[in-house]
Amino acid sequence: MDEDGLFSHAGDGTVVHDIRPDIVFGNTDVWFGDHVRDFMIAVLKTGGIDWFQSSAAGLDNAALISVGKISRLYTTNHTQSEAMAEWALWQAFDFLKCGPQHRAQQADGNWSRLEMREMMGSRWLIVGYGSIGSAVGKRVQLLGGHVTGARRSPGPAEGADHIVPMALVKSELAQADVVLLSLPLTDETEGLVDEEFLSAMRPDALLMNLGRGQLIDEGALVAALDAGRPAFAAVDVTAEEPLPKDSPLWHHPKIAITPHNSAMTQATYIRADETFLDNLQRYLAGEPLKHVVPPETFANE
Amino acid sequence: MDEDGLFSHAGDGTVVHDIRPDIVFGNTDVWFGDHVRDFMIAVLKTGGIDWFQSSAAGLDNAALISVGKISRLYTTNHTQSEAMAEWALWQAFDFLKCGPQHRAQQADGNWSRLEMREMMGSRWLIVGYGSIGSAVGKRVQLLGGHVTGARRSPGPAEGADHIVPMALVKSELAQADVVLLSLPLTDETEGLVDEEFLSAMRPDALLMNLGRGQLIDEGALVAALDAGRPAFAAVDVTAEEPLPKDSPLWHHPKIAITPHNSAMTQATYIRADETFLDNLQRYLAGEPLKHVVPPETFANE
Repeated sequence: MDEDGLFSHAGDGTVVHDIRPDIVFGNTDVWFGDHVRDFMIAVLKTGGIDWFQSSAAGLDNAALISVGKISRLYTTNHTQSEAMAEWALWQAFDFLKCGPQHRAQQADGNWSRLEMREMMGSRWLIVGYGSIGSAVGKRVQLLGGHVTGARRSPGPAEGADHIVPMALVKSELAQADVVLLSLPLTDETEGLVDEEFLSAMRPDALLMNLGRGQLIDEGALVAALDAGRPAFAAVDVTAEEPLPKDSPLWHHPKIAITPHNSAMTQATYIRADETFLDNLQRYLAGEPLKHVVPPETFANE
Repeated sequence: MDEDGLFSHAGDGTVVHDIRPDIVFGNTDVWFGDHVRDFMIAVLKTGGIDWFQSSAAGLDNAALISVGKISRLYTTNHTQSEAMAEWALWQAFDFLKCGPQHRAQQADGNWSRLEMREMMGSRWLIVGYGSIGSAVGKRVQLLGGHVTGARRSPGPAEGADHIVPMALVKSELAQADVVLLSLPLTDETEGLVDEEFLSAMRPDALLMNLGRGQLIDEGALVAALDAGRPAFAAVDVTAEEPLPKDSPLWHHPKIAITPHNSAMTQATYIRADETFLDNLQRYLAGEPLKHVVPPETFANE
């Protein structure tokens, strides 16, 4: 697919209007490009494909669900986790090292020695401990932090000192310096972070969201930050995206916003291509693919 | 020593005007307090002490050199390295993740997906590979970066993929995404970062300074940033401290400044106290102390 949204044969460059592929790779160029809608419509118009490889982990998107319904095999991709985990470290360091205060002092030409906090010994609560959560947990542990992960399935998990069931999240909040949301949006998780959740956090804690904006009641968040608990929020996702111009989140002094781009690095694109190529080898050899989504997942949507 | 700068017995609280200690611990409270000058004068007036425990690694300070001259034993402290290493990660993440650009976009209410870079795979050149350098190197390696350390003594060092001699620093610059200065100020290192050094850096590289301000020719740095090579500088130290109000560094859009507080965390103070208590046990048991500075170091100053 070229920059004008036209499909052509990779070999001779002939433009094809009515594509009939067996395999579709919805790679990152497509996903962040101008023609994602045209691409998805063209795929859906085929009426059925053999295998769709996604460049993302998530499924909470109507177009992907529709593609899942018409694909014999649908595979996801967890290579965004690395960049997303680095985003979490970035935001946590900027919070612990008093980034906003230091920048305000620099703007004022003020040489006052602020006391900072350390990642080493910091206590993290990672709500939703899947591929993203554990990519964060592993790094935090390596840097000397303590990690509690919350998820539905019990038992040990890489990068976590403890795993607790989701039902215990609110009772863990009082111990956490950093709370990260890295869970999917479902009927159960929508609005998880409400007034009660926020008021159980520490006044010196950071809240981060790498999941979906609707996990947080944004009105309650603004009120909680204004009331001083938690201390700060860093979000890569918002309930409505792009975030509307008149949202109070944009100019709140205790909120850092990135435009849902935490995974956007060259290395993520390369890792996603590698996942596809690895699965393509398996496909051509007739072997089972990696990261297959069970078909009933789509049937139930 | 209390907040008015008066010395008193820890036991009965009697104020002592003419102190005669055997052991002096110049701890972090003293160092960052209002009475550091009174404290050092009182120590020097004793004419001689048996052991001075510093809370810092460095010796490039006239008062510490004078104390070293009148102390039978002088011990340093390397527990600031952990917090300083975290400072380096903070600044590097903020650079790689486009912190300044993201904040400018947020201030404009602009939802545009910037592409970011990764710590994983980033190439670091750490100039001066002592306790601070290796504390940084270890963390960078754990996060998937490549570390080249430059120092006088050859051979392997923890946290470094390669060690090169100081003479090769300039030839390594073309490969480095991040260049960190963590070396002491000496006649040989003063002005190390000059026009030639800066022009050998990559246009997309970050320069950081955790050593001493005089390692960098600040005029050359401003000119180099304006010319677009390197991309950004983050400094915890400046040639004159506090940085003068009229310094062009304060408001340069490609410079992040912290006021020589990279080690200022509660955990650093606790670790420094632990170093003193560990050495005190050794002292009382008649065992060799840790981190002793050879007396000839002071005699030559």
